[in-house]
Amino acid sequence: MNIEVINTGTELLLGNTLNTHSAWFGRELFKLGLRIARQTTVPDGEAITVAITESIRRADVLIVTGGLGPTSDDLTREITAEVLGLELITDEAALRSLEGFFTMRGRPMAAANLKQVLCPVGADILPNPNGTAPGIYVPPRLNGRSNCAIFLLPGPPRELYPMYQAEVVPRLRALSGVETAYEALELKFTGIGESDFHQGIDAELAAIPGLEYGYCAHIGEVDLRLIGAPAALAQGRAITLGHFEKFLISDDGCSLEAMVVRLLTARNLKLATAESCTGGLIANRITDVPGASAVLTHGFVTYANAAKVGLLGVSASDLEAHGAVSETVACQMAAGALRVSGADIAVAVTGIAGPSGGTAEKPVGTAWIGLATKDAAATAFKVYHPRNRHDFKLAVSQSALEAVRQSCL
Amino acid sequence: MNIEVINTGTELLLGNTLNTHSAWFGRELFKLGLRIARQTTVPDGEAITVAITESIRRADVLIVTGGLGPTSDDLTREITAEVLGLELITDEAALRSLEGFFTMRGRPMAAANLKQVLCPVGADILPNPNGTAPGIYVPPRLNGRSNCAIFLLPGPPRELYPMYQAEVVPRLRALSGVETAYEALELKFTGIGESDFHQGIDAELAAIPGLEYGYCAHIGEVDLRLIGAPAALAQGRAITLGHFEKFLISDDGCSLEAMVVRLLTARNLKLATAESCTGGLIANRITDVPGASAVLTHGFVTYANAAKVGLLGVSASDLEAHGAVSETVACQMAAGALRVSGADIAVAVTGIAGPSGGTAEKPVGTAWIGLATKDAAATAFKVYHPRNRHDFKLAVSQSALEAVRQSCL
Repeated sequence: MNIEVINTGTELLLGNTLNTHSAWFGRELFKLGLRIARQTTVPDGEAITVAITESIRRADVLIVTGGLGPTSDDLTREITAEVLGLELITDEAALRSLEGFFTMRGRPMAAANLKQVLCPVGADILPNPNGTAPGIYVPPRLNGRSNCAIFLLPGPPRELYPMYQAEVVPRLRALSGVETAYEALELKFTGIGESDFHQGIDAELAAIPGLEYGYCAHIGEVDLRLIGAPAALAQGRAITLGHFEKFLISDDGCSLEAMVVRLLTARNLKLATAESCTGGLIANRITDVPGASAVLTHGFVTYANAAKVGLLGVSASDLEAHGAVSETVACQMAAGALRVSGADIAVAVTGIAGPSGGTAEKPVGTAWIGLATKDAAATAFKVYHPRNRHDFKLAVSQSALEAVRQSCL
Repeated sequence: MNIEVINTGTELLLGNTLNTHSAWFGRELFKLGLRIARQTTVPDGEAITVAITESIRRADVLIVTGGLGPTSDDLTREITAEVLGLELITDEAALRSLEGFFTMRGRPMAAANLKQVLCPVGADILPNPNGTAPGIYVPPRLNGRSNCAIFLLPGPPRELYPMYQAEVVPRLRALSGVETAYEALELKFTGIGESDFHQGIDAELAAIPGLEYGYCAHIGEVDLRLIGAPAALAQGRAITLGHFEKFLISDDGCSLEAMVVRLLTARNLKLATAESCTGGLIANRITDVPGASAVLTHGFVTYANAAKVGLLGVSASDLEAHGAVSETVACQMAAGALRVSGADIAVAVTGIAGPSGGTAEKPVGTAWIGLATKDAAATAFKVYHPRNRHDFKLAVSQSALEAVRQSCL
């Protein structure tokens, strides 16, 4: 079933208002096994005529939001009737309901509100308990011009969402005539890039009948989305994990930091962080997770060398000899954080965020990540994320959190 | 000039990813005196062909985002060339740049990446310093099929935004042939809400001829955007600051944390942070600013009481008597951070982020912010931000940074 959504409103195209309807409809329709084939935003006015005329030629279902209010730029109702060649008449039940709405609030009804109870002949009024604008449902084949089922819905979310659930969902179920046939799965990975997936599993995934898949790359993370019937989904999952299980963060939407908190909590382990170049980002990500207080006890932001020496006991002469961004210092930072905090695991990072401070030997983007546990001597490894300052911090924090996760497996 | 925007990506229509590009383009184009006539979202695949074919018939300028990656569902480049009847050839300069991108990172380039440097004959490659996908600009009348100027841009904001500013803006100015007739000004405020502006200055701003204005409320911040000719802008600015100058963060887009770094640097003052409930967020925001190393020397994340005692010298008996979320403890944390770090100013926060841990006397959302300087005894004040965990942390960090800013004025 081909579904299109048209969002009307000049404010959406000026950027004053973020269009959240489209993503909301996407998620809601998906629950019914349906998806949006196209979404269009047009300003208030004549552009709506063009967009509706085009959509009803292509779509089985058209959902239009906005433009049902009482003001002169609210034209969706009038335009739809005109495009379909249907007369608009006052709906008596809607009129009484609207009068009641104003009576209850002790306010007089403005003449402008009267147009809100106009309805194309033969269409259904969709009651709006949360506002003055009822919705409208035009069934397919109401006239000769269109086979498309059309829903006109109000723009404000507090009016739109309940009306969708009460009035649109039952009609969509009847129109589509099927129960949800497919499911979705999101697998989050770190430590590999989008092109690794392309080379490693793309051809195999493409060969699974009825499976849709797509990658979404973030900094230090690639999310693989699988959509299909349960069997196809299971097959896609198996192929993917056969190649990349080591890099899997979660298959239930759990973020890397939440997975770290989950693993540490399950093992009753305490974590300490010692951060130079990430400047508190690792601790901040950990403490974004509810329950982090059971896991993170101490965090050190040792931006200055004096802080590395004073708080973590890093050797001043080693700092001098090897530089702050070195394997030695990363190890000593991790070991120091472990000792001072009494935690079970400590992770430390030291690197060059830029824009200045890089050298030929240690260019901007270089970082060392140290890891210390009670059972073993501290170790460190180098990463290289030549990105802008913000993205560098994020990428390094991702590498550090992944090191903690791996140490818990 | 008729401008259309097409956003490609199945994830946008499934609702996994919120489409923020459209609003961003709306605001950016507005600064050039331009606006979007229509925005369309289509899934990856053949629907892009239909959407592009339709748009270039109507539009003078078409901006397409997404689908320039290396994977099999990235088809924007190929589809555009096909629609226009243009051959795709490898751009040698782009190829060398891409090879350099991988060489610098010490990673081999996948064969899949090669398609990213294909360019329609006669079109311009738009360099992408922040990723592997260059953009493409197809000038109008490059072939017989279209008078529309077409920009193909990468989807990730960190790649898209700089490319837009560097490559798209100059071309749009040339295409539109007019200099921007009006200017924009953004004033950032903290410590007052949107309704304060409504009550305080809305009527006065509305009375200025030719001035457009709008508020954008964030957590702990309200941005006032003024757009108009220079004289109207100056008038709006004067009225606004006449009421609210005390709360002004910046008039040049500078964030609160950047303003704090700017002020501390100018006064050659060092800052230390001691964070409980914000978990490193304050230090993280400070270190997002280039040059933060001249300002922030030590940061403490003392999530556990033992950390407050052990690292900052908070009195265990005061912790017992007053609780961790108290004026006494906030003062002692700030004083301890100042002493241990040797900084000139220390800011400390202790609060209840939730979801659990609240009481009738100290509900979730309560926080104390302590401030210590070399010249005076530590002081603290209470804030109440009853929000979800993430937003609570952000709001408290905003209050704490504002306290530092005020102390520098």
